[in-house]
Formats: sequence, structure tokens, C-alpha cells
Amino acid sequence: MDRKPRILLSNDDGINAPGLAALRDEIGKIADVTIVAPDSEKSAVGHAITLSDPLRVWDFKKDGRFFGYAVNGTPADCVKIAYWALLKEKPDLIISGINLGSNSGINAIYSGTVSAATEGTILRVPSFAVSLTTYVDPDFRYAAQFASRMAGLVLKRGLPEGTLLNINVPPVPAAKIAGVRVTRQGQSTYLEHFDKRTDPANRVYYWLAGKKVEVEEDLDVDDYAIKQDMVSITPLRYDLTDYEFLSELKCWDMVTPVS
Amino acid sequence: MDRKPRILLSNDDGINAPGLAALRDEIGKIADVTIVAPDSEKSAVGHAITLSDPLRVWDFKKDGRFFGYAVNGTPADCVKIAYWALLKEKPDLIISGINLGSNSGINAIYSGTVSAATEGTILRVPSFAVSLTTYVDPDFRYAAQFASRMAGLVLKRGLPEGTLLNINVPPVPAAKIAGVRVTRQGQSTYLEHFDKRTDPANRVYYWLAGKKVEVEEDLDVDDYAIKQDMVSITPLRYDLTDYEFLSELKCWDMVTPVS
Repeated sequence: MDRKPRILLSNDDGINAPGLAALRDEIGKIADVTIVAPDSEKSAVGHAITLSDPLRVWDFKKDGRFFGYAVNGTPADCVKIAYWALLKEKPDLIISGINLGSNSGINAIYSGTVSAATEGTILRVPSFAVSLTTYVDPDFRYAAQFASRMAGLVLKRGLPEGTLLNINVPPVPAAKIAGVRVTRQGQSTYLEHFDKRTDPANRVYYWLAGKKVEVEEDLDVDDYAIKQDMVSITPLRYDLTDYEFLSELKCWDMVTPVS
Repeated sequence: MDRKPRILLSNDDGINAPGLAALRDEIGKIADVTIVAPDSEKSAVGHAITLSDPLRVWDFKKDGRFFGYAVNGTPADCVKIAYWALLKEKPDLIISGINLGSNSGINAIYSGTVSAATEGTILRVPSFAVSLTTYVDPDFRYAAQFASRMAGLVLKRGLPEGTLLNINVPPVPAAKIAGVRVTRQGQSTYLEHFDKRTDPANRVYYWLAGKKVEVEEDLDVDDYAIKQDMVSITPLRYDLTDYEFLSELKCWDMVTPVS
């Protein structure tokens, strides 16, 4: 590539999130960066897109200077509208993050951060998501530097069509990082419950509460690798087909009524 | 099973949608049915869950009789709250639908209907999604009968852990159904654009518009099987790991700075 690479950044914590600014600062050193991100926090929106409402786009300023485009939509909306309407030239890479909090295990399914990278992959642009696995006193510097290194690698080597990377960085100083591990998506379940409460008008409402039950003590599993202070990199694909079960399912008799 | 099976129904078109009523009428013949569904339409919400707002639950009546629980949340919220808070006993099966419109190909990722079945699978309850692939003059009868037959089959044979079924029924009379086909998720892309318009206050807004580009003329692909008037059954899994690329990715040098 003779020119500077073009990198699109998005996230689900919203355009004003510090993790996005940290990512911009680092990626800005190696690429022409455009930011298109939700105007407010959109965590746990899954792979939602906005069909029944109009989307609006604002210029978002930070410290008096243009920072990026704010969209009243989901992370997937942001990537779509960037690709189809806002960017003059297609990006070479899309990075989503840096998310505040883990997107490992089953959370990858609910994650707006991951969904922006998925949308990029659907649009055939190499894409990855980066999360810092803490909500407390986040220091995004190492995660941003690691994202920059991965950006260089992905730009150089590419990714298979239909595959994105889901990167989770533990919240420890660079010197304490125990390594980088390629992992699979953990299947830890949640023990959930709903707090049943009563509002001031005496109406019942529920809050979702839950706690992850760690089931796999295996360094090849994202949740566990992160716990061991490793950077976890999980290749994900958006083809959800269960190819293994597919051939067995073909033998089911779906025509005769079940007795 | 000596007792009647317990089946939980949900959807993303909302508790008052005719597709859900048609499903209830048919499944009610073979099972004890509980309905927990969104209080309004939640299409294209992806696998969203509600973390930052309280959930409320109402008894929803139809023709003067209790029909089911309406929840101010997403399809995944409905399945979660049914499982953890509303149902006295765990369901033997969860069915999501009957959705108005196709959930084949890439749409499976955005689909609230599929996400309800995914959530059921995460909770280790065998689950499937059913969609009728039309928005015009829907006749849900055949789809409901087929769902009932599949319910019997899944209750009898089970599904692998982590696998759900995504069923799409073409909108033709029973006699015109060309067969049942086990398929993979189509990878047809969309050619999208955003209509740029101006509102009465002279502010710019965008509508997402797009058209599916059929790329795979293969009866083993969901989109194409449906087009040939076949019922399409795609096994999906929620483990998104790309196992094929995983071993190659392990060989990447992620430590040395990229030159």
C-alpha cells in the first residue's frame, strides 16, 4: 500500500467514550482515521439495525475540533451508513472499540462492539473488535497500542472472508500482560435472576441481574485466558450454520406426522 | 413423556401479531402453552437484551381471555424473564414466531425471532424459530401445522447442545409446498443505500434501503430453497468461533511490531 491506510472506527459506548478517543489517538499515528459512532451508549444492543426510524448524522466536535460523525443509531447502523453514505472512499479496515468491559464468551452475541465489526465483515472489509475487560479505572493505553499492532498485521495479512477478530485485553499494565492467546468463544453460562421490585406508583418491575458461571478452565477459552492476564483473540464468523449437525438433520423424517 | 409437553412461545412482531396467535392455536393442541412476547414490534433488534431499563410485564388479554405475558423488552428479554421469573416450571421447548417475513441468509443475524430461539438454546432448552417468508396476505396455517410437526420431532429426538433450528416457510398453499430442505445459511450480500432526505424543519435524515443480491443458486442454501417453494430448515449454533481459521491465526506473530 503506497498510501496511508484508511481506517474506520466505531464503538457501542458512544462517540464521546474515552476508549474511542484512546483508540483514535493511537490509530491516527498509522492511518487516515474516520470515526462514525452512536450518539449515545448502545451496549447490549446485539446486531440491531434501525429500519423503522430515520437516521440522523451530526458532526461531533471535541476540544473545538471535528472528531467524527455521531449517528442516532446502533453500532451496525454506524458501519452501514459510513460505508454506504458518509465515506468518500471505502475503508481498508474497521476497528470497533475500545469497549469498556469484557466481550468474551456468550457476551459476544449481545455485544454492540462485536456487531460493528461483524457488519464490517459482511461488507467485506477486514474488521476487528477490541474490549478492555474492566469497568473500573480503565487505562486504555496498552489496549490501544495492541489494537494498532493488530491493525498493521491485519492490513498486511488480511482475514478470511466472513471472519472477524474479537480481541479482549485484560486491565493490567503492559509489563504484567502474560501473553497473547488465540482462543475460542467460551460457553460459560450465566446464573441469572430478575430482581422483582415495586416502583413509587406501586407497579411491579424487574431488573436483570446475573453472574457468569465459569465452566471451562482452559487457556484456549477466551474467558479463562483473560483471567490469566492474557490478551485473548478469538476469530468469529457470521455464518451461524451448524455444519456438523446439518448432515444428521437431513436424516430426520419431517414429512410423516409424529406419532 | 407421560405429561403434556410444556412449550413457551415468543416472537418479535409483538404479542398481538397474528402469526403468534396462529402458532398458539396449533401448538395448543399438543402442549401446555405459555406465551411471553414483546408488547410491541421488535424487528431487526438482533440479539439485544435490556440492561439499563427496568422490564415490566403485563397480562395480555385477547377476546376477553388471558392470552399471555407482554413485556416491554426484546425477544431475548422475553425468553430470559420467562425462564428465570415467570414460568413455574421450565419449558420442554421454545418456539419463536411465526414471523411475518423471511429470516433467511444474513437476516438471521439481525432477527429478533431467531434471537429468542438462540436465547432458549443458551438456556439449554431445545428451541426453534419459524418465519413465513412474505409480508403480503399472510396465511399462517401451513406454517403453524409444520411448526407443530417439528415440535413433536424435536421433543422426541432433541437437538445438540448449542444448536437451534431456523425454519422458513414459503407463502404457498400446503399443496404447492415443494418439499422440506435442510439448508445452510445463505451468504447473499445486500446492495444497500441510504435515502438522504430533508425533513419539514430542513434537517437531513437517512432511511436505510437495500435489495438482496442472490448469489448462490443452490438448493442447499436457505434463500434459494425458499425461492423454490421449499420449507427451509437451517441448524444454527451460537458458538461463533471460526475453528477453521483459529489454527492459522495461532501462527501470526502478534508480539513483534509490524514493520
